[in-house]
Amino acid sequence: MFRFSTAGESHGEALVAMVSGVPAGVEVDPAFISREMWRRQQGYGRGGRMRIEQDQAHILSGVRHGKTIGSPIAMTIANNDWKNWQEILPVETGDAAKHKAVASPRPGHADLAGALKYDFKDARYVLERASARESAARVACGAIAKSILLPLGIEVASHVIRVGEAELSRPATFAEIRAIAGREQVMLACVDPGDEARMKAEVDKALRTGDTVGGIFEVVVHGLPAGVGTHVNWDERLDGLLAQAVMSLQAVKAVEIGRGVTAASSQGSTVHDAITYAGEEPAEHYTRFTREQNNAGGIEGGMSNGEDVVVRGYLKPISTLRRPLASVSFETREVTKASYERSDVAVVPAAGVAGEAMVALAVARCVLEKFGGDSLRELRRNFEGYCEQIRAF
Amino acid sequence: MFRFSTAGESHGEALVAMVSGVPAGVEVDPAFISREMWRRQQGYGRGGRMRIEQDQAHILSGVRHGKTIGSPIAMTIANNDWKNWQEILPVETGDAAKHKAVASPRPGHADLAGALKYDFKDARYVLERASARESAARVACGAIAKSILLPLGIEVASHVIRVGEAELSRPATFAEIRAIAGREQVMLACVDPGDEARMKAEVDKALRTGDTVGGIFEVVVHGLPAGVGTHVNWDERLDGLLAQAVMSLQAVKAVEIGRGVTAASSQGSTVHDAITYAGEEPAEHYTRFTREQNNAGGIEGGMSNGEDVVVRGYLKPISTLRRPLASVSFETREVTKASYERSDVAVVPAAGVAGEAMVALAVARCVLEKFGGDSLRELRRNFEGYCEQIRAF
Amino acid sequence: MFRFSTAGESHGEALVAMVSGVPAGVEVDPAFISREMWRRQQGYGRGGRMRIEQDQAHILSGVRHGKTIGSPIAMTIANNDWKNWQEILPVETGDAAKHKAVASPRPGHADLAGALKYDFKDARYVLERASARESAARVACGAIAKSILLPLGIEVASHVIRVGEAELSRPATFAEIRAIAGREQVMLACVDPGDEARMKAEVDKALRTGDTVGGIFEVVVHGLPAGVGTHVNWDERLDGLLAQAVMSLQAVKAVEIGRGVTAASSQGSTVHDAITYAGEEPAEHYTRFTREQNNAGGIEGGMSNGEDVVVRGYLKPISTLRRPLASVSFETREVTKASYERSDVAVVPAAGVAGEAMVALAVARCVLEKFGGDSLRELRRNFEGYCEQIRAF
Amino acid sequence: MFRFSTAGESHGEALVAMVSGVPAGVEVDPAFISREMWRRQQGYGRGGRMRIEQDQAHILSGVRHGKTIGSPIAMTIANNDWKNWQEILPVETGDAAKHKAVASPRPGHADLAGALKYDFKDARYVLERASARESAARVACGAIAKSILLPLGIEVASHVIRVGEAELSRPATFAEIRAIAGREQVMLACVDPGDEARMKAEVDKALRTGDTVGGIFEVVVHGLPAGVGTHVNWDERLDGLLAQAVMSLQAVKAVEIGRGVTAASSQGSTVHDAITYAGEEPAEHYTRFTREQNNAGGIEGGMSNGEDVVVRGYLKPISTLRRPLASVSFETREVTKASYERSDVAVVPAAGVAGEAMVALAVARCVLEKFGGDSLRELRRNFEGYCEQIRAF
Repeated sequence: MFRFSTAGESHGEALVAMVSGVPAGVEVDPAFISREMWRRQQGYGRGGRMRIEQDQAHILSGVRHGKTIGSPIAMTIANNDWKNWQEILPVETGDAAKHKAVASPRPGHADLAGALKYDFKDARYVLERASARESAARVACGAIAKSILLPLGIEVASHVIRVGEAELSRPATFAEIRAIAGREQVMLACVDPGDEARMKAEVDKALRTGDTVGGIFEVVVHGLPAGVGTHVNWDERLDGLLAQAVMSLQAVKAVEIGRGVTAASSQGSTVHDAITYAGEEPAEHYTRFTREQNNAGGIEGGMSNGEDVVVRGYLKPISTLRRPLASVSFETREVTKASYERSDVAVVPAAGVAGEAMVALAVARCVLEKFGGDSLRELRRNFEGYCEQIRAF
Repeated sequence: MFRFSTAGESHGEALVAMVSGVPAGVEVDPAFISREMWRRQQGYGRGGRMRIEQDQAHILSGVRHGKTIGSPIAMTIANNDWKNWQEILPVETGDAAKHKAVASPRPGHADLAGALKYDFKDARYVLERASARESAARVACGAIAKSILLPLGIEVASHVIRVGEAELSRPATFAEIRAIAGREQVMLACVDPGDEARMKAEVDKALRTGDTVGGIFEVVVHGLPAGVGTHVNWDERLDGLLAQAVMSLQAVKAVEIGRGVTAASSQGSTVHDAITYAGEEPAEHYTRFTREQNNAGGIEGGMSNGEDVVVRGYLKPISTLRRPLASVSFETREVTKASYERSDVAVVPAAGVAGEAMVALAVARCVLEKFGGDSLRELRRNFEGYCEQIRAF
Repeated sequence: MFRFSTAGESHGEALVAMVSGVPAGVEVDPAFISREMWRRQQGYGRGGRMRIEQDQAHILSGVRHGKTIGSPIAMTIANNDWKNWQEILPVETGDAAKHKAVASPRPGHADLAGALKYDFKDARYVLERASARESAARVACGAIAKSILLPLGIEVASHVIRVGEAELSRPATFAEIRAIAGREQVMLACVDPGDEARMKAEVDKALRTGDTVGGIFEVVVHGLPAGVGTHVNWDERLDGLLAQAVMSLQAVKAVEIGRGVTAASSQGSTVHDAITYAGEEPAEHYTRFTREQNNAGGIEGGMSNGEDVVVRGYLKPISTLRRPLASVSFETREVTKASYERSDVAVVPAAGVAGEAMVALAVARCVLEKFGGDSLRELRRNFEGYCEQIRAF
Repeated sequence: MFRFSTAGESHGEALVAMVSGVPAGVEVDPAFISREMWRRQQGYGRGGRMRIEQDQAHILSGVRHGKTIGSPIAMTIANNDWKNWQEILPVETGDAAKHKAVASPRPGHADLAGALKYDFKDARYVLERASARESAARVACGAIAKSILLPLGIEVASHVIRVGEAELSRPATFAEIRAIAGREQVMLACVDPGDEARMKAEVDKALRTGDTVGGIFEVVVHGLPAGVGTHVNWDERLDGLLAQAVMSLQAVKAVEIGRGVTAASSQGSTVHDAITYAGEEPAEHYTRFTREQNNAGGIEGGMSNGEDVVVRGYLKPISTLRRPLASVSFETREVTKASYERSDVAVVPAAGVAGEAMVALAVARCVLEKFGGDSLRELRRNFEGYCEQIRAF
């Protein structure tokens, strides 16, 4: 069974990422994982922390001689800042006086609800786990998921389609979106330079005013054959799994499949993707049944339909503002400003990378469930057998 | 462990709904379940089927003398039309000649992907399970979830905020939304009569043109204390669970928590909900920490924060059009019109009722996980102990 | 994902059995399910109820034209006695005076713990669900599991190896064990007539004295290739899954894989199954690596190793005695006799049939996880590809 | 949701243990975890490895200032031997020539099935994960589980009741069993010195002959109130969960609850535990309903009944013999001796410690499911409310 989990606090010694259920024989390239983690740290509008640490995943298990061996993959991602926090957040009893309280709950964060739920006097312990730093571990897990999908010809990529009021003004091809991951300078991960400049202006405005700004990323899965996920049970639908995966990311407040938001204002005759039939032999993963548009975002009835799967995550603006919002002191219960911890102004490209990870993990789970296989050889044989079957349908 | 599942095909003998993990001693009123199922069948723009059957849930187990007894609750919902389908869709081998093929896949439906995945020659067996008729069983399950939540003072209600281009033009109070469930005539489940008339005009337009139209429903959970769900694991966050629950509904293509869609275009200073502190003793489920707005939709850090939880489902237009879309014949592979099965033109209010069910089920799961309890007495004692704790925080 | 669940009370209207995650295209023969349920009702030492009802599974969904269609399979098993219990155990409020209390908890049953846990004044509602009648629904589910395994050449059968002090005195071949399921008269499901006569004498002794008697059944899985289950995670090991499956049966108090009990008193040199290598081409599911004994019961490192999988369930004597044990009145708290409900004296062959079901369900789950597949065609292709791979290893 | 998992290979850099779903505020004492891990390394008959490493769990997350904070707890357990294996088992591609093949599969081990399943040319990668070394990580997880249970007054302890042919000859009290964990010299963890000497003689015999020997450990849970686990679903029964937990341990081939094995040869009148009623006020976790014997092992109907829960694990003799069993070379396919890796002769006390861990984890899961609670304060309040309820029943 494919599954993954993370552990670790923002200023603790290390994050931990675990992935289990990976077939044996899958190549895992540490440089690729590092590159993915680097991508999560980029983007115009990031705060100071991104400069402190260049995240590295250290693999402890599950990979030997460069390939998976079937057993769980555990990775640690050290926090380089730990030396400065060791006495503030010790595992052992330590010196309570060195505790660094988050004195007033920050609106938009887990602080208040978490302190109430876990019966804490302040929000320090909540912040430590709720921080988006956790998504570094998800990205490491996602890199494993991508490593499973890649030998099957399934790719996952993302781009930014909105920052604040600046929106991508034209369609993007998969080739363009895929190319973004190769950029050496990540600005705002937009396929169009003009639009990216307008997005940068949105970030600049927020920087100037001590504010923050939201945006939308789009994750695309390319090369997924029809029939992954299923309509038969509510909790096995691909759309539902993707929605949970992406909504569970810090700061995501809405998830859209295909053109889901505008579809709600539209008529059926324009929304649905008419079906045609190709004369020629279909490519590797595909059937002869084709479409001329993809408003459904590659999912019908909770299953992939052979088109690109398109998932969008809507990000609220970062909740920590340089000009803090109004809040209440945990101690005095008097009105005050929300606590401030070093933070970013905009994170849309980085959230897109985390979104890729979550989408890749959800797709890998469904792919492994459908095709089984304990070795890459077996998985690939099963996968190809099916692709051949649907090509011949 | 609280869980539920459904079985059954659209034209089979019956749907089946199962709910397990319900504490003993919870009152279950068959009339309430029937009422919920009736509500799912209403709304302006529904097709003929809604007139054929008045759905009734028949309880087979788990409820005795009007109360739950801790064991799984199984319900059947008979299809009154079964007599006409018994020879078309027999369980036994039957007469293959009477099979009624869905000859060409309908765009927007599970038809094509399902036929490929399950290796069917046509889409009949896919349609039968993928049909939104299945949501009747979810509504029956949801009625059980609501019956658990109600004695704790937690209510779930929905209303329609958009049909096609017509949108609700003003905020709605929870009292207004709650009142919709009591209406004897469900038009479009809008709190505002003027807006509802405009919504009706959108449906009328689609009716006239043989088209269909989408919309947005909003589900609100009222009375949920802070601290339900958690930030500590991606798959235990309340926002993620709600996103999966609602996205898994037939025709939903986007899910939004609070003002998630507009937040993506906004700045942090306007989006986040500043925290204040109440002088007086808080009401039953609440703390003294309060808000003046609720853009977060009652969830921060993946947990309820004590405000109303607000979840929106975006519905694509119904995929079956009276003027069918272009498709391809399964048999000849020639271009043709998509198959047509009796269908609706708009289902936003009904989808809202199904949305309530899914939200109630997700919330009940998290509530039971947090508070435990094998009898209503025990659940309530645990729940009240916690509410007292956070009131005194 | 393959899963199953049951609902229903012993004297309710019906039991309900649900199985989900079955590939499409699997033949389901209602006569086979009935036969399995009949087998569960047989055996020397059964009480009156077995004569009242001839259990029949009524399929409501998931099977059409004699084959599975991928959607969940729901079955009901009517209780013919319901008419006599309708007013005693109504779903609706009913007449509380007609409630039939289980006035004193029966030792060995769920009665006392259940009444405390669920906060009931007496044990009626506990008994209703805890009764071994529930296993009829498991047998129906198990028949579906067997229907999946059979086209892959995997068979599951059981026999009785002990009743009280009478034990099977010789090894049994799989052919002998398989033949038991075909018997028209089930005495004690022992492969050896002499031993069976001694087992019958044990039951007769208990019958005479108003007592009950325990025993051991053995379930054997034949034709399972090596590599099902896994050593990599504690909760995915086949031995652990089988242990849970069989221990969860009513009255089972110990589970043994292979010769696990005697192995604990033995030395390694006699216990472990030395490995040899076959010169000839191996049969369908097998490798050239072979064994001359099978003390491991076909499982090493939590995986099937290609030998017959052998699981034993140890049954305590039936807890309801005609000469009741000492107990305490729920109402007066005075010492009294335990309540008596019609019951059996020995159920070892029937428990073996339920054991087959649970083993088949656990094996089917692991097989489907390893091989994937949404249609029988796809499952079989994947399965055969793997068998070929290990034959060629 | 309470869950745990492990990762890591026997000769890799470290094992990893993760526990999630622990309420906040639970004291975690590193010295206690170390002590548990030390106990797992003790016992007469252990091989050389136990002298190489004194296992230590290094906590990376989830514990701050000596208490849990609600977030997942991750621990690493370094392998001190890693420096000698770094080039043999590198994570990176490394030098394939340094790979150290397990050239012939060892009977009784995962070697053969694992190599076939995962498509490996030899059994090295299988052995690495299948090794009982993994249970060190389970013991670390179990120490967390015990830390949750202890403040509720629930204790878990184990002792050895058989080694080879030497069996404990008298009953043991819980005080005696609990005392074993405090011994500074662990011989064979038997409560009776005379029996322990006979057990030692069994190990000595195996040592002399190059053989290995099996045994039985017994785990006892003391202080668990009635009503943990449930009869309502097969997969939520405490007996089934315990059976899976213990059977999943390396070398365990049978699991028994109470007197399950002998009960199968017995009559009901002697097996079942008659119920009496105490005149006086019951102690903290208990009801007035009492028993004079505990053959049921504290579980009836899949639920705890308030008596001590008693679970036995039957261990086969260690599969690696100094005088290796017959096997076949992976490379030549010729008959040879099984590969030999440094190993133990008997591990019954150590397996008992691992058994405690698995039982504590299963019980903690059920306790947290029944009582809920996100802080120890909340958990304890809920727990005490229930204990009061059943005392007053």
